[in-house]
Amino acid sequence: MSPGPRVDAGRVIADLRELDRRTGGPDGARRVAFTEPWRAARSLLGELLGEIGLEAERDEAGNLWAWLDGDGEPALAVGSHLDSVPDGGWLDGALGVMAGLGILRAWAEARKRPPRTLALVDWADEEGRFGRSLLGSSAFSGTLVADAVRELRDPGGERLGDVLAAEGLDLDRALEAGRRRERLRAYLELHIEQGPVLEADGLRAAAVAGCVGIERRRLRFAGQAAHAGTTPMERRHDAGLAAATTALAIEALAVRAEGMGTTGALSLRPGIATAVPGEAELLVDLRHPDAVALETMVAGAVAAAEEAAAERGCELAVEPVWRIEPISFDERLVGLAGEACREVAGSDRVLTSGALHDAAEVARVLPAAMVFTPSIAGLSHTVAEDTNEDDLAAAIEAFGLLAERALAG
Amino acid sequence: MSPGPRVDAGRVIADLRELDRRTGGPDGARRVAFTEPWRAARSLLGELLGEIGLEAERDEAGNLWAWLDGDGEPALAVGSHLDSVPDGGWLDGALGVMAGLGILRAWAEARKRPPRTLALVDWADEEGRFGRSLLGSSAFSGTLVADAVRELRDPGGERLGDVLAAEGLDLDRALEAGRRRERLRAYLELHIEQGPVLEADGLRAAAVAGCVGIERRRLRFAGQAAHAGTTPMERRHDAGLAAATTALAIEALAVRAEGMGTTGALSLRPGIATAVPGEAELLVDLRHPDAVALETMVAGAVAAAEEAAAERGCELAVEPVWRIEPISFDERLVGLAGEACREVAGSDRVLTSGALHDAAEVARVLPAAMVFTPSIAGLSHTVAEDTNEDDLAAAIEAFGLLAERALAG
Repeated sequence: MSPGPRVDAGRVIADLRELDRRTGGPDGARRVAFTEPWRAARSLLGELLGEIGLEAERDEAGNLWAWLDGDGEPALAVGSHLDSVPDGGWLDGALGVMAGLGILRAWAEARKRPPRTLALVDWADEEGRFGRSLLGSSAFSGTLVADAVRELRDPGGERLGDVLAAEGLDLDRALEAGRRRERLRAYLELHIEQGPVLEADGLRAAAVAGCVGIERRRLRFAGQAAHAGTTPMERRHDAGLAAATTALAIEALAVRAEGMGTTGALSLRPGIATAVPGEAELLVDLRHPDAVALETMVAGAVAAAEEAAAERGCELAVEPVWRIEPISFDERLVGLAGEACREVAGSDRVLTSGALHDAAEVARVLPAAMVFTPSIAGLSHTVAEDTNEDDLAAAIEAFGLLAERALAG
Repeated sequence: MSPGPRVDAGRVIADLRELDRRTGGPDGARRVAFTEPWRAARSLLGELLGEIGLEAERDEAGNLWAWLDGDGEPALAVGSHLDSVPDGGWLDGALGVMAGLGILRAWAEARKRPPRTLALVDWADEEGRFGRSLLGSSAFSGTLVADAVRELRDPGGERLGDVLAAEGLDLDRALEAGRRRERLRAYLELHIEQGPVLEADGLRAAAVAGCVGIERRRLRFAGQAAHAGTTPMERRHDAGLAAATTALAIEALAVRAEGMGTTGALSLRPGIATAVPGEAELLVDLRHPDAVALETMVAGAVAAAEEAAAERGCELAVEPVWRIEPISFDERLVGLAGEACREVAGSDRVLTSGALHDAAEVARVLPAAMVFTPSIAGLSHTVAEDTNEDDLAAAIEAFGLLAERALAG
């Protein structure tokens, strides 16, 4: 079989710049799912698909699909998400959609039929406007529970169920998006790393072997609020200091476990200068690629919190907030991704993603793999998010090569 | 000289109960300065003064005064404050006003002239409705700076200057309240301890030697906000953990210094589960009776914060919030207070107050002293604030004896 047409990386980057012009601003990307700038992003995608004679279709979960017929099916899907966080970056999600479009366009403009049908997908609301990430891809994979998300509200108070309805989407039918699984053989996604590892190691691209598991807990310490001036130090039950001790212990155990442990939120009540905190609440996020190691981290964090509470005569309550098990991508596709990154970018690195991606949902039901490209200073979800054009081009080309080989497989 | 008439402690307690009926509620005292319940409290005080033929006068800072003529002047002032925090306790402040009234009443009903004029004072807004404690007594002592407080707002958004104006008070004339200093020789105040020390030691009353000095600082740590899943532990600049380390260090140094150190507020930004905190802000309150020891505590806290910041590659900014030097009460009056507590309640204890009181402001310009009575479980500023009636009665009697001896001196 002759090699497939090469993706034009420069044109993919130009498409991304045009998207940024239409939907970005001084504070960053504004492509929040189901808002006007997001519709403008999809409308640009529609224009670009139109240029190669394709028309997009929307599934029951709001995901957008475009199909380029090949010699056979099941098809190979490529894509990511056009939606962004508020004040987000120009590349997060959009890179994978535009690179996927670049692959379809290369075949279409070469007037060649790919060995199997190519599908481009733009997943809806990956960022979780309503607090539930991976909305569209989880409907596709079948893990979305409509009744568990219907009443979720975005920061502006809008209800998920209402916003979908206004978009012409019936939440109770969202799982029907999964019917498209039958037409698909595999899924590939290109994404920025959103972390500092590739940049630090001077790598332009890397295969991604899977996504870490995540355990999120809310820890509530109840001590005794008391006057900061009249309560001797030895008579205090300071919930804030129990929380501080716990946050530091969680850092230490994450380092030991070679995982990640973050106390992203910490609030004290009454929260005034003149009162010993009677209550403290922590939001803790633990991540590890290995399920057993992750479980050990959770147990260690709870034990540390219990010890800190006992030491100060505080009560502890531990609430589950959210969890997802570690996801491994398809071994063969990860191998192909590694080959492509090595051949195009000289990179042997295989990473586990510490962030979640649509590919993690898709991997539950289809063979999947990802390619990462560096993020300057590891920044994402900010207007400062960026990647050098050379790195972008190399990663887009490696991703194109991966797709070509997956099409053939 | 024959002994003075004895204060009727039972009647003082009955007055306090009546005040609570009129101005308390299921959530506690509602006598917030310059509100209707506070005016109702003053109106009850006016009724009680009327029963003994006295009329109250208001000074330029909103403090209320009543004068019972004696054989000479300068006068002895007794009092405290009728205002409360929102959802406060029935005794905080009110005890000292009603006990003072009890002293005037004892002389008036005995139809005796005291050896010197007796003044009852109800200081305005001790609790700091607008964030500035000791408003009326600081106008009296001359430390109030009108322009520094005019724009302060209460939690409901009302401006101090406007609220005073609505009350018929001209903030720019508030310092004229200080003219009453010329008529006064000394000031005495009875107050609940608002801490757990007296109850723990089974004491009904204690002399107070002064008020601790207070240094309040805002510590801001600036690190680097980063993705909780993609930023390796060793690459983080976690401002929240720098803050946690600092809060624990401040506790340790306060214990070592035998002072008090409290981190009452701690906030993280962005403050979400998925982000390493890029910014953290602490509000730290340090107290010590000794000025040099207090200064050492401040230096230690700043050094600990600097070390924690440096350890994590964070920037530190230290902002002064508020300070007051330690205040010593008048040695002779503290001695008399100690005698009275020993004779009436068998208590040899002399405390330094960890909380501020109007007496601390008055002590800048007049000899002053205080007597404390226990707080059950050390609680105050809550509906649960209480003191056993036997303790109240003993402390009121000891305060009466102190006043009698101060009148004679």
